[in-house]
Amino acid sequence: MQGFFEVLTVEQVVRLLSAFAPLPPEQANLQESDGRVLAEDMIAGEDLPLTDRAAMDGYALRAADTFGATESNPSYLQCVGNFDIRTPPNLALQPGQCAGIVTGGMLPAGADAVVMVEYTHALGEGMVEIRLPVAPGAHVMLQGEDVRAGGLLLPTGALLRPQEVGLLAALGKTRIPVRKRPRVAIISTGDELVDVNATPKPGQVRDVNSATLACLVRRAGGTPILLGLAPDELGALRAQVRKALNMADCVLLSGGSSIGICDLTVRVLQSFQNARILCRGVALSPGKPLIVADIAGKAVWGLPGQVTSAQVVMLVLGQAFIRHLQGWKNPFDQALWPQQKAVLAKNIASRQGREDYVRVRLEQESTGEWLAAPILGMSGLLRSLTDAHGLVRIPASLEGLEARRQVDVLLF
Amino acid sequence: MQGFFEVLTVEQVVRLLSAFAPLPPEQANLQESDGRVLAEDMIAGEDLPLTDRAAMDGYALRAADTFGATESNPSYLQCVGNFDIRTPPNLALQPGQCAGIVTGGMLPAGADAVVMVEYTHALGEGMVEIRLPVAPGAHVMLQGEDVRAGGLLLPTGALLRPQEVGLLAALGKTRIPVRKRPRVAIISTGDELVDVNATPKPGQVRDVNSATLACLVRRAGGTPILLGLAPDELGALRAQVRKALNMADCVLLSGGSSIGICDLTVRVLQSFQNARILCRGVALSPGKPLIVADIAGKAVWGLPGQVTSAQVVMLVLGQAFIRHLQGWKNPFDQALWPQQKAVLAKNIASRQGREDYVRVRLEQESTGEWLAAPILGMSGLLRSLTDAHGLVRIPASLEGLEARRQVDVLLF
Repeated sequence: MQGFFEVLTVEQVVRLLSAFAPLPPEQANLQESDGRVLAEDMIAGEDLPLTDRAAMDGYALRAADTFGATESNPSYLQCVGNFDIRTPPNLALQPGQCAGIVTGGMLPAGADAVVMVEYTHALGEGMVEIRLPVAPGAHVMLQGEDVRAGGLLLPTGALLRPQEVGLLAALGKTRIPVRKRPRVAIISTGDELVDVNATPKPGQVRDVNSATLACLVRRAGGTPILLGLAPDELGALRAQVRKALNMADCVLLSGGSSIGICDLTVRVLQSFQNARILCRGVALSPGKPLIVADIAGKAVWGLPGQVTSAQVVMLVLGQAFIRHLQGWKNPFDQALWPQQKAVLAKNIASRQGREDYVRVRLEQESTGEWLAAPILGMSGLLRSLTDAHGLVRIPASLEGLEARRQVDVLLF
Repeated sequence: MQGFFEVLTVEQVVRLLSAFAPLPPEQANLQESDGRVLAEDMIAGEDLPLTDRAAMDGYALRAADTFGATESNPSYLQCVGNFDIRTPPNLALQPGQCAGIVTGGMLPAGADAVVMVEYTHALGEGMVEIRLPVAPGAHVMLQGEDVRAGGLLLPTGALLRPQEVGLLAALGKTRIPVRKRPRVAIISTGDELVDVNATPKPGQVRDVNSATLACLVRRAGGTPILLGLAPDELGALRAQVRKALNMADCVLLSGGSSIGICDLTVRVLQSFQNARILCRGVALSPGKPLIVADIAGKAVWGLPGQVTSAQVVMLVLGQAFIRHLQGWKNPFDQALWPQQKAVLAKNIASRQGREDYVRVRLEQESTGEWLAAPILGMSGLLRSLTDAHGLVRIPASLEGLEARRQVDVLLF
């Protein structure tokens, strides 16, 4: 049971993790491309819009015909047609003419602007009064204004959001080259563990990490593969890890935090060909007993068995790594994490030389200010996570944070 | 083509939407319960932990036996056993005795604390030197400390996160009573529209809203049902809406922003039994021509056809409503939205009496400060959404926001 970890800094671990190659591309259906990263430049095959289109209900006209128009001194134009959305206009406007048009309708030739219906009055016999001057291009979406045919629609590396999916739809792109989503195998080790469905005997506990890790993987865009329990025994654990490596792009082992179990995990991982142990301990609390290995280019994580530690490691490093595999830029940047500014309710002490993540509960004061109350003295309890709204980071260089100091709460 | 909207404030629309009943409960598998809302109180069936357990590797002992121990004046205890995780202890510690224990191991009777292995030294012949005093309860998770049998595990209305899923796993809860996820039918109307897979003729455009709305529904936890295109014709549109109401919990129609099309939508919705038009226009920009109807208890939305307007309505109201149907508390509260503080790069003008959402692009200055640059003059373009990182809200009471003012950018 003796031994010490060789501890890396969080930054060192981030550098090691960033060196893993992102997953290869695949073709996804448009509907499945949201939240994913483009693996190729997308080029527009045609202009968008395809033709000049009205952006408002009203009259298409030549802007010059409205110059100087006012409420008291309107312009008068001859309406030569009313085009509904079904009927592309079949005429060219001459000076002094206008045509009724609806939002989205194609502009007739000769027209260069639309006046909104609110500023007009139909006088009968095709005469229309225009009470407002409009500039050329007013309320018109010009052909190619959004994208020109042959132009770059979206670059390699772009993260697709609903609006990017919309832009791809507009150009008729239905198969999208994106980075694959990682399949992440999850194995819980520990001879005290029983399945969630089992009734534990004295000394046994149900496997919590499999359920929690699967949720965290899914939230980061990965696909969890639950392989269940493995015993704390070299041969059996090795067989399970081999199976995981065959099925998945990344493996999450979680096991007891005891030094003996860590040693076993390291021995199992070292037993594979092309295995390199990259990390054996990180200056992170909770989460210190973290193992990361590279086995033939795949990352295998030995996460702490303690649920709270495993979750903090996943929040700080694991979810970012799953996004890294999907091709995200700067996934480890915590600025991307939803956060809330708050004032610390109490002093928090921290050991220098390690990054501390303190679970806090947010409470709003009558002034509207948010107070972050540290959840102390129950580090191993599940309650300390379910009672918390987020984490406050104490950098490795500090010995703590004083009460009333402003902090960013990383929400979860 | 004439007519005016009767416009409600955003707050009025929120009140109307909040009056819809959340969906009924269903039983979800544990793995599918993340992100959902509990429909019943969850009660613990047993203590958690089930027994006193060690939180560290070391020795279980009676704390009193270590009082006064120091580096130079250690306590000496007799080690009467070493318990691995597989073997529940079969003895009771007497004063002066200790037992080797690993993290997670069950404490032997008589022990009330664990001393970490780092502060001990095995001297041989079962003698152990303890160089640090420990308090009763040190490094021990007490039986029932997390939850007591019969106690409230999680209350009705709790939003389940990975850690709550873990807590449920720990108690062996595998079928979870949660509110249903809304099935949301999506119909695009507009005679100019063609399917994403089609090649548009002059005057036609591909249906963008179906793709975008489906992503937004999914991100809010709903299940989109894509019903495709419906013509701008009362009978056909009515048949499509009837089909949608039969299949779904909520219907999103999106159609041209033209007043004529709005009138058609209203006529279609009014033609159903037990239909009430709740909203015909909202003081929101973009997004003014919004229709909301209650048809026999189901919400039917007539969204603006313009993609940017439809997306803003979904971000400000629609996604929150989908969460409301799932039982979220305060889903319309924008404090829940991920945001970034930034300084406005330019003046933005806004019409008083309506809430304006201005698309902005974030740029980081050399000082580290974030600058929010409004994307102006391209309101109907898809680019104005894909170039943007978020929205800045201008309250209805203001005529604009000045440059250099601090703003919260609602990220999307």
